Amino acid sequence: METKEQFQTAEQEENEALYGVSQETIQALEDALEDNKVEEVARLIEPLHAADVAIVIEYLPPSLRHNLIELLRPKFDPEILADLNDIVREEVVEQLGTEDIAKAISKLESDDALSLIEYLDEDQRKEVLKSIPIGERVILEEVLTYPEDSAARLMQREIVCVPNFWSVADTLKYIAKEKHLPEKFYDLFVVDPKHMPIGGVPLSLLLRQPPATKISDIMLADIKRIPAFMDQEEVALLFRKYGLVSAPVVDEGGRIVGMITVDDVVDVIEEEAEKDIMLLGRVNESDFYEPLLSTSYSRIRWLMITLLNMVLAATVISQFQETIEKMVALAVLMPINAAMSGNAGMQVVTVTVRAIATRELGGVNMSRAIWKEVIVGLINGIVFGGLMGAIAALWFSDPALGMVLGGALILNMMVAAVGGVVMPILIDRMNMDPAISAGPILTTTTDLLGFATFLGFARIFLI
Amino acid sequence: METKEQFQTAEQEENEALYGVSQETIQALEDALEDNKVEEVARLIEPLHAADVAIVIEYLPPSLRHNLIELLRPKFDPEILADLNDIVREEVVEQLGTEDIAKAISKLESDDALSLIEYLDEDQRKEVLKSIPIGERVILEEVLTYPEDSAARLMQREIVCVPNFWSVADTLKYIAKEKHLPEKFYDLFVVDPKHMPIGGVPLSLLLRQPPATKISDIMLADIKRIPAFMDQEEVALLFRKYGLVSAPVVDEGGRIVGMITVDDVVDVIEEEAEKDIMLLGRVNESDFYEPLLSTSYSRIRWLMITLLNMVLAATVISQFQETIEKMVALAVLMPINAAMSGNAGMQVVTVTVRAIATRELGGVNMSRAIWKEVIVGLINGIVFGGLMGAIAALWFSDPALGMVLGGALILNMMVAAVGGVVMPILIDRMNMDPAISAGPILTTTTDLLGFATFLGFARIFLI
Repeated sequence: METKEQFQTAEQEENEALYGVSQETIQALEDALEDNKVEEVARLIEPLHAADVAIVIEYLPPSLRHNLIELLRPKFDPEILADLNDIVREEVVEQLGTEDIAKAISKLESDDALSLIEYLDEDQRKEVLKSIPIGERVILEEVLTYPEDSAARLMQREIVCVPNFWSVADTLKYIAKEKHLPEKFYDLFVVDPKHMPIGGVPLSLLLRQPPATKISDIMLADIKRIPAFMDQEEVALLFRKYGLVSAPVVDEGGRIVGMITVDDVVDVIEEEAEKDIMLLGRVNESDFYEPLLSTSYSRIRWLMITLLNMVLAATVISQFQETIEKMVALAVLMPINAAMSGNAGMQVVTVTVRAIATRELGGVNMSRAIWKEVIVGLINGIVFGGLMGAIAALWFSDPALGMVLGGALILNMMVAAVGGVVMPILIDRMNMDPAISAGPILTTTTDLLGFATFLGFARIFLI
Repeated sequence: METKEQFQTAEQEENEALYGVSQETIQALEDALEDNKVEEVARLIEPLHAADVAIVIEYLPPSLRHNLIELLRPKFDPEILADLNDIVREEVVEQLGTEDIAKAISKLESDDALSLIEYLDEDQRKEVLKSIPIGERVILEEVLTYPEDSAARLMQREIVCVPNFWSVADTLKYIAKEKHLPEKFYDLFVVDPKHMPIGGVPLSLLLRQPPATKISDIMLADIKRIPAFMDQEEVALLFRKYGLVSAPVVDEGGRIVGMITVDDVVDVIEEEAEKDIMLLGRVNESDFYEPLLSTSYSRIRWLMITLLNMVLAATVISQFQETIEKMVALAVLMPINAAMSGNAGMQVVTVTVRAIATRELGGVNMSRAIWKEVIVGLINGIVFGGLMGAIAALWFSDPALGMVLGGALILNMMVAAVGGVVMPILIDRMNMDPAISAGPILTTTTDLLGFATFLGFARIFLI
């Protein structure tokens, strides 16, 4: 108890200082913007980290947001754009215009610059690239030839490469003098004459060696070379699995072309998990910041699937109108079967979709996973079929009715289990995203089958 | 098209080399273990990274897993334990026994040692701690007094602290000579005489300064001090927001007690997102590796909620048996209302639960978020109420029936929208996890209300 309370207080006390922007600050800013007190606004914004300014911009209602951007325009910090949510960023980019965006982008390292350019539409992108100095433009244009969501799009071109015959002293001197190094780096990469990475040296290791030591004697040869075409989700899995902080990116010839650092990967991990959460919940990713009408539209598109599903289910039920008329208890009980098997199936879909995404489910353990789900489905079918059958039998004093409901439940929960694990695997094999379609396909199946089997069994055995 | 194909091939080619363990290797290992070819097993395991050995162990069926652990026992690498999934780890720990575990733990840095000890039960923990040398034991026992999931449990005690009056040369000399430094580090922390952190120096910055420079002149004062009691989810949000690679942890007196590095945080981000995905899908977190019966049991517990929900719904429907008898079309249409509002509500719950988890939804924008959902709910209610009402009216040639269904849908989708945003907020305010209970409470509400309003309206207006 005491620990918990202590915990709460410590948390509350520290949060404001740590998060840099308090509710009071945002409120004060809203007031200052409403009253157009330019100096007050500047005073409040000045001490904030770019990530916090981004939060303030997101929190503000659209009209005040517009005013704030105008005030920030003369010395707009491009890092703010990188931290903004997609929807709000688009708005701000629109307002700032291509010239100011180009100016901002030129100040960034290549990976940050790129991630901003990626968010522009085709026309804006051309405009902005035109205004960027030729040296940087060529680099950006080259990286843009790689597919979206590939490793190359995450990497920065600025890297520290050294040959393996250098000594520690040579290396330290090079780092101290060389102008074109990344702002932050954690590993040096050791390259051969063809510029292929052959090892890595963490800075903390470098610092603990005598100056005369050869790089070849201390480098770690067991580095992970990321192919430029690798999907960003794979990159994230590699970083997580091997606890990497930075890794070299290589082109198809195996030559080093850049590096990926863990801060870019942290965002990918969060994004990829977020995408699955939202898709399994049948909403769009950026839903929270979407304008009202576009939220409404994207939700309607997902709900249309439910509507279609339910109209099909109603069609199935309508085939049994006579049966229901003769025995209204069927109408009372029929939603149970569809709901139970639908929920049981979604449990399996959730587990399977994530196991595929995190590579826990691969070729080797696939048949074991499927068998497990089949048996779990059978056990749970028997448990709930028995339980619900007994309840129905007692409720309507009709053992035959209980057996019909119980039997239909066992059958449907088995089908839901098998479908729940096989469907995502098949969809993944077809190179489509199982998080999007596995759920809707499965619940439609369990709904139709749920009503059809229960009412069908009833017509055969009870009427 | 070409890019996509290229992408696929490059991916497949490289994956094996990068992931270190191919399906063929696992198959060969299974065969060698089955035939008890000890040397062949050793030859296959030898080149693998600990994370890959963990994967192999997870993939193997239980009996072969047991054999492999016995073969690995003499020189068991404790890193393997850290990489194992919870369920499998417990099995392996059980098999290895406390003495061998204690030996393994003594070799690890404090954060890795701690994360292993955390997974032991009370008795095992005492046994293991007894067998650990006193110096390390005291440190571990102290950290164990902090609450689970707190920052202290993530940190390592090994840190590099320097006073601000040192020069760069002093610092480099200290790092080169000092024995008790962390294996890997990315920042130095600058502390005052009371051992309070006053700044940080990234290694890549340190290396680019003239030797005579004072640390106080180059240190970054804008560091984030993590309170030892802070929840790990908050820690992950801070790292992500500010792109941190390492950060000092401070006790309640503000003194530095350890540091957290980004590799620990990457796991937390993944874990926290995974937890929400699984809870929203109504399954347990570690479901995929759980033994069959315990998977079945934990799924049954979640499905019991659905069962209860559906029995309540059946009770509601049973109140309208006479109405249904008079008009069987009601039985055909009644699942539509419950399903549509249930799905619409879950969309809102998903968005709200994640917005709370990622701190996008805070005190300031709460009323705006609620209003947005209410209006979206109204719009979508009108769209689907109108559409479905028209379909029902045409299908059964009964405009009044269409109006009843449409009206009920509008009402229920509004309620679902409001409930979907307000419920998670209230549950969060009560310091409970909205990912667990918001979904079940909401769908029960929409189901009961869905049947009650549609059938109720029908009794009033149609019969």
